[in-house]
Amino acid sequence: MDKLECVICNETVRLDVFSPFCAKCGEPLLVPRERKARAFRTEKKFAVEIFRDYLPLSEIDPALSLGEGDTPLLELHNLMDRYHLPRLLAKNEMVNPTSSFKDRGSVVAVQKAASLGLKTIGTISTGNMAGSTAAYAAKARMRSLIFVKEDTTKEKILAAGIYGPILVKVKGDYGRLFRKSFEIGRKHGIYFMNSVDPFRIEGYKVTGYEIFLQLGGRAPDYVFVPVSAGGHLIGLMRAFLDLKEDGIIRKMPVFVGVQAKGCAPIARAFNLGQSSVTRFPNPATIAHAISNPSPPGGNIILKMLRENDGIMLAVSDVEILKAQQLLAEREGLFCDPASATVLAGLLQMAPKKVFRPRDQIVLILTGSGLKTLEDLDARKIDYREADVDNLEKTIASVIK
Amino acid sequence: MDKLECVICNETVRLDVFSPFCAKCGEPLLVPRERKARAFRTEKKFAVEIFRDYLPLSEIDPALSLGEGDTPLLELHNLMDRYHLPRLLAKNEMVNPTSSFKDRGSVVAVQKAASLGLKTIGTISTGNMAGSTAAYAAKARMRSLIFVKEDTTKEKILAAGIYGPILVKVKGDYGRLFRKSFEIGRKHGIYFMNSVDPFRIEGYKVTGYEIFLQLGGRAPDYVFVPVSAGGHLIGLMRAFLDLKEDGIIRKMPVFVGVQAKGCAPIARAFNLGQSSVTRFPNPATIAHAISNPSPPGGNIILKMLRENDGIMLAVSDVEILKAQQLLAEREGLFCDPASATVLAGLLQMAPKKVFRPRDQIVLILTGSGLKTLEDLDARKIDYREADVDNLEKTIASVIK
Repeated sequence: MDKLECVICNETVRLDVFSPFCAKCGEPLLVPRERKARAFRTEKKFAVEIFRDYLPLSEIDPALSLGEGDTPLLELHNLMDRYHLPRLLAKNEMVNPTSSFKDRGSVVAVQKAASLGLKTIGTISTGNMAGSTAAYAAKARMRSLIFVKEDTTKEKILAAGIYGPILVKVKGDYGRLFRKSFEIGRKHGIYFMNSVDPFRIEGYKVTGYEIFLQLGGRAPDYVFVPVSAGGHLIGLMRAFLDLKEDGIIRKMPVFVGVQAKGCAPIARAFNLGQSSVTRFPNPATIAHAISNPSPPGGNIILKMLRENDGIMLAVSDVEILKAQQLLAEREGLFCDPASATVLAGLLQMAPKKVFRPRDQIVLILTGSGLKTLEDLDARKIDYREADVDNLEKTIASVIK
Repeated sequence: MDKLECVICNETVRLDVFSPFCAKCGEPLLVPRERKARAFRTEKKFAVEIFRDYLPLSEIDPALSLGEGDTPLLELHNLMDRYHLPRLLAKNEMVNPTSSFKDRGSVVAVQKAASLGLKTIGTISTGNMAGSTAAYAAKARMRSLIFVKEDTTKEKILAAGIYGPILVKVKGDYGRLFRKSFEIGRKHGIYFMNSVDPFRIEGYKVTGYEIFLQLGGRAPDYVFVPVSAGGHLIGLMRAFLDLKEDGIIRKMPVFVGVQAKGCAPIARAFNLGQSSVTRFPNPATIAHAISNPSPPGGNIILKMLRENDGIMLAVSDVEILKAQQLLAEREGLFCDPASATVLAGLLQMAPKKVFRPRDQIVLILTGSGLKTLEDLDARKIDYREADVDNLEKTIASVIK
């Protein structure tokens, strides 16, 4: 439990939360997967307690939880009908405490920080991660240090700043900032729980176990996941690898990672058969939450998807915005553009007749549309104007 | 199940969703409370299925659910320590599908609409209700008609408009618009499920039953609820009245309704010993979601609170903003100003030594702070600026 491993060059090293990268190849280190007796403790209250046997935490303090997880798995009947799809479900990660899947990772990393006696945590973020890390630090009475890009909107500053972190707007390259954060962390004892932090990734496994239980104890056939740095997809795949290793499922789901065409470094490398991801030039997409041109988990994703017959897709902003609207208008789910990539990806695949009638397909909706309202500005939301006195006439003309 | 009653003048009338007001006294009609054998079906998936014996629905279509309810009850350890309080818990209604408690009512009212074969639903709203009603209409393949006030912000129009309702910005008095909506509904067969709709109110009962179960099968000693039109508080009180009638609890919790001082028509009438609520002049408060100068459920609230030894408080905008910040900075919970009134109310009562050491106090947090970011504009969120190259120096000066 106090070791980390490099799944690219198979090194195992002692845990050091300040340097979670392989000294040999530079890849992110992960928690070693181990065979052991384990079970779901479904009588427990919080998700991290229910799945603690699968998490690298020797103890769990429920006081550090904000009630994350246990999110609904909703059948999307209307989209199934409209597009003649097999059983389609959405795992709604938007209803986590800070409205994104990041809380799943934050709670595990903060538990780890507490068990190590650390008092300051940090992250770099363009949005969701900032709010999540700052909220969990507040609950744990820790100090948090949040680095945001210089062009971060006032709304996102407010949504994270309300929790009282030390906020720094940083000018300069995001990739350099990523590396710099670990340098600063090491020097000042600040645990930077960034996108591919090994404990954050373990937290994402919980979503996978919940899906398995919500489907009545079976794996779905397909899981669609938006991909940015890679941590979320790595965690979800590891959940089902655990279940397969334990003999609870026989077959892995087909994982479909989805990126935006305007920033698709992993999809590009995967589909070109390359074994490593290179920087994506001039990233430009409306799906800001997954616009990472140098994803640190990219090479691990390439390896894991290939070992497990996965797929990587890229979807355009037009497809993303259409999918976002479909989810809201047909299913009552208002997600951010990054989340909508999964439906866009599904609609790209559907005409190719790969799905069988009895398949079960899960879309992971990662974050709320409320945090990206500014991206809707361009969209025309129709509304009429009326006075109370002439209201009935207006309505009569609309309702026929 | 096809009757409604006036709890003010004790009339019972046949159900008509287009006219849910007493013909004699004009008060909102409620679903009659009936004694019957009933139980919690805890093996079920969705909250409305678990508590269906307590709801006026002869059948439930799970396809109309968005996964509302089953929200966390979180212990607020840090605030308990800071203010030397007995056990304090927050029922986090912000993690409902459209980020507010309204979804609890919308799902029940939409189930009713579907069972009546209605195809168009509507509401009038300043924010949360619009998004909730439009989302549930989308899921149910119903048309929705949303009336908003003329000064509604672009953000709120977007957050509701994304679901594809017919949106009308209406100029004129809100109280008149409330009455007008029912006229239009009656004429055009549109079910206006407004704030005190009898089925909406029944939906709010579910929150009460969940709290009872989450406390291990007992009632809390105090429940703090923000009060606007009155529907939410009426529903919560009815939940515990049901449990008392069934002999499951012996004593009702003390319900504490909280309004903003800038719009406190019910608190004023209650504390002056009046039996009816009059219009509050010149409403002005940052808690927009509960700024209703002519609350339709006001007189019912007065009666129910007096019958059950309840309390009504009013808190200032300064107290509200301080409470909002405390919940975020100390507990990692970012709620809107309307929700924050409950902590403000608690902090007003705490110095009066009314709470006993073994009391359990529940605060209902009704809506997410993400929908009212514009109200934070005035607040100074501290941030620093740095360049990647001089970042370490900046941090060294902050971290000591």
